[in-house]
Amino acid sequence: MNTPNDWPRPVDGLITPRFAGPATFMRLPLRDSAEDVDIALLGIPFDGAVTNRPGTRHGPRALREASTLMRRVHPVSLIEPYTLCRVADLGDSETNPVDVMGTLALVEARVASIRATGAWTLAGGGDHLMSLPILRGIIRAKLGLAPLGMVHFDAHSDTADTNFGGSRFTHGTPFRRAIEEGLLDPKRIVQIGIRGSLYEKDDMAWAQEAGIRIIRIEECEELGPDGVAAEARRVVGKGPAYLTFDIDSLDPAFAPGTGTPEVGGLTPREAMRMLRGLRGLQFIGADVVEVSPPFDPGGNTAMVGATMMFEILCLLAEARASR
Amino acid sequence: MNTPNDWPRPVDGLITPRFAGPATFMRLPLRDSAEDVDIALLGIPFDGAVTNRPGTRHGPRALREASTLMRRVHPVSLIEPYTLCRVADLGDSETNPVDVMGTLALVEARVASIRATGAWTLAGGGDHLMSLPILRGIIRAKLGLAPLGMVHFDAHSDTADTNFGGSRFTHGTPFRRAIEEGLLDPKRIVQIGIRGSLYEKDDMAWAQEAGIRIIRIEECEELGPDGVAAEARRVVGKGPAYLTFDIDSLDPAFAPGTGTPEVGGLTPREAMRMLRGLRGLQFIGADVVEVSPPFDPGGNTAMVGATMMFEILCLLAEARASR
Amino acid sequence: MNTPNDWPRPVDGLITPRFAGPATFMRLPLRDSAEDVDIALLGIPFDGAVTNRPGTRHGPRALREASTLMRRVHPVSLIEPYTLCRVADLGDSETNPVDVMGTLALVEARVASIRATGAWTLAGGGDHLMSLPILRGIIRAKLGLAPLGMVHFDAHSDTADTNFGGSRFTHGTPFRRAIEEGLLDPKRIVQIGIRGSLYEKDDMAWAQEAGIRIIRIEECEELGPDGVAAEARRVVGKGPAYLTFDIDSLDPAFAPGTGTPEVGGLTPREAMRMLRGLRGLQFIGADVVEVSPPFDPGGNTAMVGATMMFEILCLLAEARASR
Amino acid sequence: MNTPNDWPRPVDGLITPRFAGPATFMRLPLRDSAEDVDIALLGIPFDGAVTNRPGTRHGPRALREASTLMRRVHPVSLIEPYTLCRVADLGDSETNPVDVMGTLALVEARVASIRATGAWTLAGGGDHLMSLPILRGIIRAKLGLAPLGMVHFDAHSDTADTNFGGSRFTHGTPFRRAIEEGLLDPKRIVQIGIRGSLYEKDDMAWAQEAGIRIIRIEECEELGPDGVAAEARRVVGKGPAYLTFDIDSLDPAFAPGTGTPEVGGLTPREAMRMLRGLRGLQFIGADVVEVSPPFDPGGNTAMVGATMMFEILCLLAEARASR
Amino acid sequence: MNTPNDWPRPVDGLITPRFAGPATFMRLPLRDSAEDVDIALLGIPFDGAVTNRPGTRHGPRALREASTLMRRVHPVSLIEPYTLCRVADLGDSETNPVDVMGTLALVEARVASIRATGAWTLAGGGDHLMSLPILRGIIRAKLGLAPLGMVHFDAHSDTADTNFGGSRFTHGTPFRRAIEEGLLDPKRIVQIGIRGSLYEKDDMAWAQEAGIRIIRIEECEELGPDGVAAEARRVVGKGPAYLTFDIDSLDPAFAPGTGTPEVGGLTPREAMRMLRGLRGLQFIGADVVEVSPPFDPGGNTAMVGATMMFEILCLLAEARASR
Amino acid sequence: MNTPNDWPRPVDGLITPRFAGPATFMRLPLRDSAEDVDIALLGIPFDGAVTNRPGTRHGPRALREASTLMRRVHPVSLIEPYTLCRVADLGDSETNPVDVMGTLALVEARVASIRATGAWTLAGGGDHLMSLPILRGIIRAKLGLAPLGMVHFDAHSDTADTNFGGSRFTHGTPFRRAIEEGLLDPKRIVQIGIRGSLYEKDDMAWAQEAGIRIIRIEECEELGPDGVAAEARRVVGKGPAYLTFDIDSLDPAFAPGTGTPEVGGLTPREAMRMLRGLRGLQFIGADVVEVSPPFDPGGNTAMVGATMMFEILCLLAEARASR
Repeated sequence: MNTPNDWPRPVDGLITPRFAGPATFMRLPLRDSAEDVDIALLGIPFDGAVTNRPGTRHGPRALREASTLMRRVHPVSLIEPYTLCRVADLGDSETNPVDVMGTLALVEARVASIRATGAWTLAGGGDHLMSLPILRGIIRAKLGLAPLGMVHFDAHSDTADTNFGGSRFTHGTPFRRAIEEGLLDPKRIVQIGIRGSLYEKDDMAWAQEAGIRIIRIEECEELGPDGVAAEARRVVGKGPAYLTFDIDSLDPAFAPGTGTPEVGGLTPREAMRMLRGLRGLQFIGADVVEVSPPFDPGGNTAMVGATMMFEILCLLAEARASR
Repeated sequence: MNTPNDWPRPVDGLITPRFAGPATFMRLPLRDSAEDVDIALLGIPFDGAVTNRPGTRHGPRALREASTLMRRVHPVSLIEPYTLCRVADLGDSETNPVDVMGTLALVEARVASIRATGAWTLAGGGDHLMSLPILRGIIRAKLGLAPLGMVHFDAHSDTADTNFGGSRFTHGTPFRRAIEEGLLDPKRIVQIGIRGSLYEKDDMAWAQEAGIRIIRIEECEELGPDGVAAEARRVVGKGPAYLTFDIDSLDPAFAPGTGTPEVGGLTPREAMRMLRGLRGLQFIGADVVEVSPPFDPGGNTAMVGATMMFEILCLLAEARASR
Repeated sequence: MNTPNDWPRPVDGLITPRFAGPATFMRLPLRDSAEDVDIALLGIPFDGAVTNRPGTRHGPRALREASTLMRRVHPVSLIEPYTLCRVADLGDSETNPVDVMGTLALVEARVASIRATGAWTLAGGGDHLMSLPILRGIIRAKLGLAPLGMVHFDAHSDTADTNFGGSRFTHGTPFRRAIEEGLLDPKRIVQIGIRGSLYEKDDMAWAQEAGIRIIRIEECEELGPDGVAAEARRVVGKGPAYLTFDIDSLDPAFAPGTGTPEVGGLTPREAMRMLRGLRGLQFIGADVVEVSPPFDPGGNTAMVGATMMFEILCLLAEARASR
Repeated sequence: MNTPNDWPRPVDGLITPRFAGPATFMRLPLRDSAEDVDIALLGIPFDGAVTNRPGTRHGPRALREASTLMRRVHPVSLIEPYTLCRVADLGDSETNPVDVMGTLALVEARVASIRATGAWTLAGGGDHLMSLPILRGIIRAKLGLAPLGMVHFDAHSDTADTNFGGSRFTHGTPFRRAIEEGLLDPKRIVQIGIRGSLYEKDDMAWAQEAGIRIIRIEECEELGPDGVAAEARRVVGKGPAYLTFDIDSLDPAFAPGTGTPEVGGLTPREAMRMLRGLRGLQFIGADVVEVSPPFDPGGNTAMVGATMMFEILCLLAEARASR
Repeated sequence: MNTPNDWPRPVDGLITPRFAGPATFMRLPLRDSAEDVDIALLGIPFDGAVTNRPGTRHGPRALREASTLMRRVHPVSLIEPYTLCRVADLGDSETNPVDVMGTLALVEARVASIRATGAWTLAGGGDHLMSLPILRGIIRAKLGLAPLGMVHFDAHSDTADTNFGGSRFTHGTPFRRAIEEGLLDPKRIVQIGIRGSLYEKDDMAWAQEAGIRIIRIEECEELGPDGVAAEARRVVGKGPAYLTFDIDSLDPAFAPGTGTPEVGGLTPREAMRMLRGLRGLQFIGADVVEVSPPFDPGGNTAMVGATMMFEILCLLAEARASR
Repeated sequence: MNTPNDWPRPVDGLITPRFAGPATFMRLPLRDSAEDVDIALLGIPFDGAVTNRPGTRHGPRALREASTLMRRVHPVSLIEPYTLCRVADLGDSETNPVDVMGTLALVEARVASIRATGAWTLAGGGDHLMSLPILRGIIRAKLGLAPLGMVHFDAHSDTADTNFGGSRFTHGTPFRRAIEEGLLDPKRIVQIGIRGSLYEKDDMAWAQEAGIRIIRIEECEELGPDGVAAEARRVVGKGPAYLTFDIDSLDPAFAPGTGTPEVGGLTPREAMRMLRGLRGLQFIGADVVEVSPPFDPGGNTAMVGATMMFEILCLLAEARASR
């Protein structure tokens, strides 16, 4: 079995320019199998469940391209993920752009196959419905795993029951489904950055009654990033947890390339400080979703997304190394 | 019953600037019902069946915006569509972005309801699968209507059997389905502008065996626009016919905003000259599809699409007036 | 007479996708007349008075498009504007792009005709000179109305005397004219977010001597959003007031699509918090101006503008309902 | 008096990179006065008379930037304009963006002051109304000059009487005014590339009755570029003439950055071949207008415009040298 | 040794969507070594030798992304390159963005190492200077290889002696160097599409005296694509030859993303027809260069470039299979 | 000798619109010589030393264009730089885009020639390596000048030893070279805004050991802008100093047009407040670098850059006037 020491590191930008070569996640080698991998970086090119602007099917390639700017060491925690873990780009999950239900099955199967090797998944999406088959793939592949806690960065709660007169599987519903299916423990879920006008006064009623801790953007301001992180740690507590980062948690000035932008969001500095405050949580999987390149002619959204992937990779690597 | 004389004409750009007011198709009034309407301009905001780049759900609004530059008289034929027919913007068909099959039913129902009033539909899409429910709506709503002939501008034949391991309803399959369902008579179909590399040598075998007349781009060059139009008239002959204009029939320099561009296509001048050569055919419906605004930062694709809609509107108006 | 209960609400994005249908302000019905309307949403497509980059003539359509993402309930105050008031899209005012003085008359007439029904106007511009004919339309249409107070978000004071050697009607002069004409009471005006280099040290002398309370961006930082709102409430006091929101009050990273951007402006979070702090003021009209889509390839400016329109709509609806 | 031999040539791109230095027209020196100049390159930054999309006020700077790619010798005729004539960048005419009539006076005065030195003007606009004060400046400044002939490349005839209910000075009316004022001889005018839908069947009636020779795009196709040039030479004949090149004569795929694009226009190759066929005509002034950079995110429009300016400069230089 | 039969084919777009997975050239597998490869697709990410706009260092990734739209069979010749030859993506050559001379050595070494296995190189650049080290790598790696013939599509002759006061290695000089070094036989070189204004009347003198056959764009029009191809075949004749395709040979409307655009170029249809007319020539290597994505916000340039790569791949595959 | 009183001021935007005329820095006159100039605004169009995305060769023109929005008086300090000093646009330094070492010599010579007149240089770049020849030009041109202190805004320390296996002159190395050459005193250098992932844990070791005071972005947050400014004043102390402002010190939402963006940077408000806190330091030169227009389709980066140039110009003017 490999150890991190002889596992391939990212291509070195000090030697080979960052614009050179086909882009893989973090300039890591592309692998067909998760065998011997600790953390699998997986693209999920899908936007079949979005309710407004599409384009997240193009997210994985844009994230890969932007991730070539990432280096190897976290600048504040000094975590070195590639020293702690064996990390690889597993390519993209199969998806079917014209078949939502089929794609749910394909992604679950792919994540489960990764999980079967013991590896963890850090996914780059893809629309937010994709968190559902990832969670299915993680939980169903591992007997006895209890519902997970979750730290959820987003402008939206994504706990609607249906859209469009009965559609139960959209990017507005994944966490309702996941709770119903016993994949998540709502009392260990914290949602950060929620905002935007409401359809009805009680839009959040189901989520709140289920026990989800919602920290709206206004409360984020009051608590400050450190306060939010502390609250997130309190809610999620000990036990395995998932981290999902919807890029629309950020203000659209920082991340315009997304399908349902909401004005007045987090700044990347706030988000990074919050993420850095989550060290110690027992994350076993994560995703960064809703990056839609066609709506960002400048490309900054993918840059921000890749930066968040690196922040999260450091959290995962430390969590895994300290098991 | 109204006559065109007292039917509302487009807002006059010589009085009210073209950038003013909410954009409707051709600056016509927005109607809930097709009652008393001869030609219904209908948006179909959908991209759930595209195989590559999405975005055509945003096509109808972009076409409306661009159509505010259209005026009232055809510059060459001097056809005045609004003198010949009562034309209105019927708004958009209901669609469900996360449900292909549901959308097929919604669009068919909407077109059938228009057809039930006797009005004809000129649709602005939307992906090319949407031609299928339009044809269903036209044929099924009118007892005894034989399979239609069709003039089909496109880079692709769109007669594949399936995509992605079995999906039968994508924007690559509508005309195979339409022929199988008896909506179209393949021997009266002409496809113009077909090009691009092939998956297999026999990609077109089914279409050719079915009797479709395929005029590849190379043959378009040889025949010239007038020759292509003559051949199209010969193939389609007398009898009711449909006209479908995929914006990717044009070279992507002229129409970059589309999902599956193919280099080396028609110029707008060629396409307009071909369309003008189709006078006399008995068109009873038409569409302009595959306009995807997110992939055209300059906006020219919608401008070209709106221009083609006006060209086609003139054909429809003349055909209807001369019944 | 209608009541809000049977007045049309915005099209529901949970049923009909937000990208569907011709775009109207807030997805409300389009009305020719303000009869029975409480709050009229009015586009003013004009940029004939801008001193630097044009394009605000295209602002109303972009604001309408972006406003389709707004929902029905304010997320913090829980104000439901469509329950409190009857709101409609009144289309665009007539304008003449080549005639500044003519446009002043056209817009005043249109606003006065709305005012004559008793309705209030919330305008989406258009350049900032358009605030002048709106104020004229409000004041002149209603006998006995005293000069209004005003909350004015902007990077610039817009109280110059002339531009370009004598032009008295530009987007840099509307509030000087309005004060001279007795439409505004300078002692009840507060300007928020003013910044940018000066032509002369005493650029603001006239405004300050007139009694306008200028809160430069540096003072905004010191006071904080709540402090700014408190100061605005103090200055404007009781009595009818107008609210004008120049999108360039925001930093150009958040709202690049504007004609005279100034680096270092408000964030949308700050602006929204300030607006939310203005509840209780007796606003009777408002505008959001200077949205110039051609200078924002990403489109975020209109999104921010539409969000501010919704924030302001809530203020107006509450003010009107509580009369 | 200077001769071309010791007159400054353009900065040499083989020595100083073309991206270096403040951009002037053709990398020529910037002059305050036309004294000793044969051909004055003059910017006219104005869009106050456009009826649809604005932005041509930013045209001169974009043309200057793009013109830094031009070299010194015509590739086919081998004309060397800087050897034949003394050419300089005269900067921009004063304009007033909020005052159409004032700008007409400012531009006329500036062109007349250039003409007073004996120099000819090649203007880079600016909207097409600007041709009117240029013609005024040329004719009025030189006693006894008869009405000029004109070669006019355009999608539109620009001979409307009024726009917007009576406005007589818009970019749709300049040549009607010029003919009325005796600046142009309609029987020596040829319009090339006219196209697009019509408001009324007789939109062109006034122009045709006045004697203007209109070569619509369809006839351009039939005649071919050489035939069009021959016809233009026939119509204009001997005697002083003006050349006006509206960038919207070109198809918007080649020149998207313009205010009233019409699909199906000339290609640059056709236009250049036509221009090259105009050698021998007695041009004494010219302009390239309607370049609107905000509507061309890629920048090609200005590149095409600068190329046309160089083609026209060669015509002017040869005409002047051969007097 | 592998045969094409069991060599990996491109990922099938009918099964796996074309937007899925990290992008490689033509969706082929990425290989470290050219062992067993017939045709090596090689990226050369470099722009250190450009004289005007940079950005071609980002060309290879953009070409890979666009090439995912290519299929497997040529639509006209029905050549199946992957049946004839084993083709792979060899990744990018090492380059040093701050060191022109160093990069010349790195690229030559890389191409030579490919050549050493017997494989041919089809490169995607990169600026045009890169043709020089490719030619060096081909010739120097194979003893006894005579100077090559060359078909050269370009707006510029690229046979200058120096730029910027003595720099001998820029993208304006590669073929002068290659001829001086005996890599190319000037009498077997044909240049197609040359155009644009000249620095001096005799800009092309050296090339013409060396015996290069220059077919300017005007002559291309006269000969037509078939005539150009015939002339190219005549000039190059029998014997090994190279094919270099500068994307700026095309009109910038079709390929705006390039550093030194020249208005009035080839259309893709013309270029493809010319390429298809070159069957039978003994090409042993080729490149497509000067694709600069930052100057093409719409992305069409890379699409055209990838299409040309596929056209050329078919030529190479047939040439190699028929040896 | 001139005094500021009769020295040309910027063109007045209240008279001549800001979009008019060829763009020079701050709308100042263009001068060939620095004679009588106090502060020379100098463009340095170069990107030959960048390690990731190029494009800064186009920075100077974009900065000039954006600087036409600057006015004459600082809004907070009320410094009037053009009253204090004679300021002019000196055009661009000669550069050679294909020759890094040659460009170092050209820029040093140009700056030295300016320095020889006694004028100070405020440069608009250009990549960050250009700070090195500027410093050489300043120091070497003035005998006896001790190593300078420096305030350095940047995301990166730019004190690497080499890139790409030995290249010693890249935009990642200028200040290591400058310290080695005795141009800068590391103990009087403060770096502000440093952030981003690291290649190795000890990336900053050399800089720290040399005595540079690094204020990472996290410490900037803790100290606040006033605290950072105080610390900068403390570190730099008395004695001549240089100010270098890398635009990537700002968050890429505010300044996307740069080559090596790092998420989570300074806001312009923070940066401006820090700059304003540096009054009293003895700056004798400065630059604003790394503005890469091709990567900013909206153009805000240059706007921010021009604003920072104006802020810095005020610092320089006050410093010079108070000597």
